[in-house]
Amino acid sequence: MLGVRCLLRSVRFCSSAPFPKHKPSAKLSVRDALGAQNASGERIKIQGWIRSVRSQKEVLFLHVNDGSSLESLQVVADSGLDSRELNFGSSVEVQGQLIKSPSKRQNVELKAEKIKVIGNCDAKDFPIKYKERHPLEYLRQYPHFRCRTNVLGSILRIRSEATAAIHSFFKDSGFVHIHTPIITSNDSEGAGELFQLEPSGKLKVPEENFFNVPAFLTVSGQLHLEVMSGAFTQVFTFGPTFRAENSQSRRHLAEFYMIEAEISFVDSLQDLMQVIEELFKATTMMVLSKCPEDVELCHKFIAPGQKDRLEHMLKNNFLIISYTEAVEILKQASQNFTFTPEVAAVDLLVPGVGELFGGGLREERYHFLEERLARSGLTEVYQWYLDLRRFGSVPHGGFGMGFERYLQCILGVDNIKDVIPFPRFPHSCLL
Amino acid sequence: MLGVRCLLRSVRFCSSAPFPKHKPSAKLSVRDALGAQNASGERIKIQGWIRSVRSQKEVLFLHVNDGSSLESLQVVADSGLDSRELNFGSSVEVQGQLIKSPSKRQNVELKAEKIKVIGNCDAKDFPIKYKERHPLEYLRQYPHFRCRTNVLGSILRIRSEATAAIHSFFKDSGFVHIHTPIITSNDSEGAGELFQLEPSGKLKVPEENFFNVPAFLTVSGQLHLEVMSGAFTQVFTFGPTFRAENSQSRRHLAEFYMIEAEISFVDSLQDLMQVIEELFKATTMMVLSKCPEDVELCHKFIAPGQKDRLEHMLKNNFLIISYTEAVEILKQASQNFTFTPEVAAVDLLVPGVGELFGGGLREERYHFLEERLARSGLTEVYQWYLDLRRFGSVPHGGFGMGFERYLQCILGVDNIKDVIPFPRFPHSCLL
Repeated sequence: MLGVRCLLRSVRFCSSAPFPKHKPSAKLSVRDALGAQNASGERIKIQGWIRSVRSQKEVLFLHVNDGSSLESLQVVADSGLDSRELNFGSSVEVQGQLIKSPSKRQNVELKAEKIKVIGNCDAKDFPIKYKERHPLEYLRQYPHFRCRTNVLGSILRIRSEATAAIHSFFKDSGFVHIHTPIITSNDSEGAGELFQLEPSGKLKVPEENFFNVPAFLTVSGQLHLEVMSGAFTQVFTFGPTFRAENSQSRRHLAEFYMIEAEISFVDSLQDLMQVIEELFKATTMMVLSKCPEDVELCHKFIAPGQKDRLEHMLKNNFLIISYTEAVEILKQASQNFTFTPEVAAVDLLVPGVGELFGGGLREERYHFLEERLARSGLTEVYQWYLDLRRFGSVPHGGFGMGFERYLQCILGVDNIKDVIPFPRFPHSCLL
Repeated sequence: MLGVRCLLRSVRFCSSAPFPKHKPSAKLSVRDALGAQNASGERIKIQGWIRSVRSQKEVLFLHVNDGSSLESLQVVADSGLDSRELNFGSSVEVQGQLIKSPSKRQNVELKAEKIKVIGNCDAKDFPIKYKERHPLEYLRQYPHFRCRTNVLGSILRIRSEATAAIHSFFKDSGFVHIHTPIITSNDSEGAGELFQLEPSGKLKVPEENFFNVPAFLTVSGQLHLEVMSGAFTQVFTFGPTFRAENSQSRRHLAEFYMIEAEISFVDSLQDLMQVIEELFKATTMMVLSKCPEDVELCHKFIAPGQKDRLEHMLKNNFLIISYTEAVEILKQASQNFTFTPEVAAVDLLVPGVGELFGGGLREERYHFLEERLARSGLTEVYQWYLDLRRFGSVPHGGFGMGFERYLQCILGVDNIKDVIPFPRFPHSCLL
C-alpha cells in the first residue's frame, strides 16, 4: 500500500523534523483491513466515507468505505460518542483496534478509540440518499457523486481492472503498445460523423488552420497501427475515439474507448479470430478473478441471468459462421434486409450488445488500392498509405473492440452511459 | 508468443480442414529466436524485414528484424540463391535450422533452407537508406517509415514498456485507473490555449452546439480526478492532453500524454513528493530492466553522458528545496525574474527538460473557493466542484507528469517530436 508507505516514510524529507517517538497507528486501506488474517487488536487507522450508521443501546455501528473495495469496514464505537456529525456521506478518520468480529457477517471489525469527522455531509441536500437504491438513470445526473454508490463504484473498479488486464494480455503476447494520434488530418471515413477542431476563438476563420490542414478527432487508430505493424509486427492501441453522431442510443457515445490491434504476416481470418477470442476470454477471466464481488453485484442487481450467459461464453468456443451461412440465416428470418457483401472481414456479435469486435484482412495489392484512391481523388492525401505497400509490404490484418460495449457485455449493463466515468453524447457534456 | 499459438492453433476453427500431417516449422519472433538456449538445429520460421545484406564467396548473410527487439537475426544462405530481390527493407519469410553461431557476434543464427520475399523494397525510392545514420530531423518527415529505423524502433519500444510500467506502478499501489474525459466543457484554464470542437461542417454555427455548450479538448484531467478521489481515495489517469499553443519549441506539442494522480486524505506536500519520486524511480528501473539494449542505443548515439546522469538520479534522493530557498537562489543568479508566489505546490525540475512534474494540495475550504468563483462569475458552472467540498470533503492533492518529457529525460532525446509516434504541432499534422 502506497498510502501507508507515504505516510510512514514521508518524514525523511523534512530535514528538521525529528523521527516520531511513538509508533503511529498504521494507516490501512479498507481492503487491506478487511483482508487482515488473524486480527488480534493491532492499532490501525482508516480513512473513508460513512456508508451506514446504526445506533443501538450501548454501541454505535458505522460502515466506512474508501473505494478500495465494495465491502465496507464495520466500526464499533461506544454509544456515548457524540455522533451528531456521523452522517451518511461524511468523511471520517477512525483509529482503533482491528479485531476478529463476533458476527458472522464479517471477519474483522474496527473497535474505535477515536473517530474524527473530516468533512460533514448534509443529508438533506446530498443527492445520494441513505439506504436508497437509486435507478442508474437518476444517478447519471450526478457524475461527481454517483461514483460513491455501490454500483458505480463496482463498475468503475471493474473498468480499471479490465484496462489493466487488456494491457497485460497484449504485453504478454509480444505486442508493442502504440499511442495512435487523437488529432488527425484523415477525413475520409464519412465526414458527417467527425468532430473538427480549431483553437478556441478561431473557429470562424477556417482558412487559417492551426495545423495548415483541417484537423479532426480520430474515429479509429487503424491506419496508424498499419504503419506501426510494418515495423513491430504486432501492435495495439487502447484509447479514445469519437463520433459526432446524433445518436441517443443505449449503445453509442460521442467519446468512447477502443482497443485496436494490427498484426503483420497474417493471412487468414482464423488468425485474427483466435486473437479476438483469446483477448475476450483472458481479459474476462482476469476481471472475474480480481474483483469477484464487484462483478457479482452487477450480475445480481443489474442483470440477473448474465452470470450464466457469461460462463457459457467463457466455456465454449465462439461460434463461427461464414458470410454465406449468415446470409442464409437472415434470408430465413423472413425480414427484408439490405447488405453489402464484404470479404475477408469478421465481426463478433454478442447478445444484448450487438457488434463487439470488427476486423479484417487489409488490402495489400498496390495497384488495386491505387486505382480506388485515384477514383476517389485521394491519391495525394494517401500517398503515404500507398507507400506502405511499395516498400516491404506484408499481408496484415487487425480488429477493434469497443471497450464500453465489452463492459456492457460482461456485466449486463443496459446503457453505455453507465460504464464510463463521464459520458459524452448529444446535448450532454456534464463536468 | 501469440503469433505462434495463433498459427498453430488456428486450424481448429476450420471444421473441414484436416490436421496437417507434417509438423510445420515453428514460427518464432526474432526476439524468441535470439533468446533460444542451446540451439541445435530446430526447424523454425521467421518473418521480418531485411536490415542488411552481405554477399561473400560462398555464403550470403542477411539480417532480419521484425521489431520485437533491437537486435536482428543473422540468416546464412547459400550464395547460389537468387538474391536479386533480397534488398534492404524487403519483407521476407525464412525457414531453416536455428543453430549455434560460429561467430562471437551472436549466439545463434538461422541456416536458411528457404527464403521467400514477401514484399520488395525499391532502394532508390525508399527514404531510409541502407547503412546511413539519418538525423532525427530528417526522419521526422517520414512518420510512416522512421519506426523501421533502429533509433525510433528503440524509442517506441521503450515508450511501450514505460506505459506498461506506469500502469503497473499505480495498480500495485492500490490506485484505481480512471479514463478522464477528452471532451470537456470546462474552459476556464486560459481559453486562448484550448482547442474547441464541433461536428465537421457545423463549425460556423456555434449557436447550435453539439453538446449544447461549447466543448473543448482537455488540458488536464485534474478536476475529474478530484471527483473520483472522493470515491476511490487513490486514482490516476494516463491519457492525451492538448494545448493550442503556437509553440515550435523542442519541449512542446499540441497533443501530448500526461500521467496524473490524485490522492485523498493527504495533507502534506511530502506525501506527494514521495509518490512522485517512487513513480519516477520504479518506472525507470522497470524500463532499464526490460529493454536495456534499446536504452543503451539511445544513451550511446543520442546522448552520451545521459547514462551517468540517470544513474545519479536513481541512486540519490531527489533534492528538495523550499520556495524561499528557490527564490534566494534565483535572486543570487543576478537575472531579472518575475514570479507569482504559490503555496503548497511542488514542481520537479530535471536538467535538460525543465518541469517534469507539477503538483500540489488542493483548496478545500468551501467559502474561500466560493468567493473566488463568485468573483470570476463562475459559481454556476463550477457548482459541482463546490459541491465536492460540501459533501464529505477531504484534504487531497495530486500531480501530473508529462510522459514525453519523462522519455526525453531518461533517454536524453533533445526534441519532444522524436519520442511520440505521430507528433502534432503548429503547421504539422502528418498522417
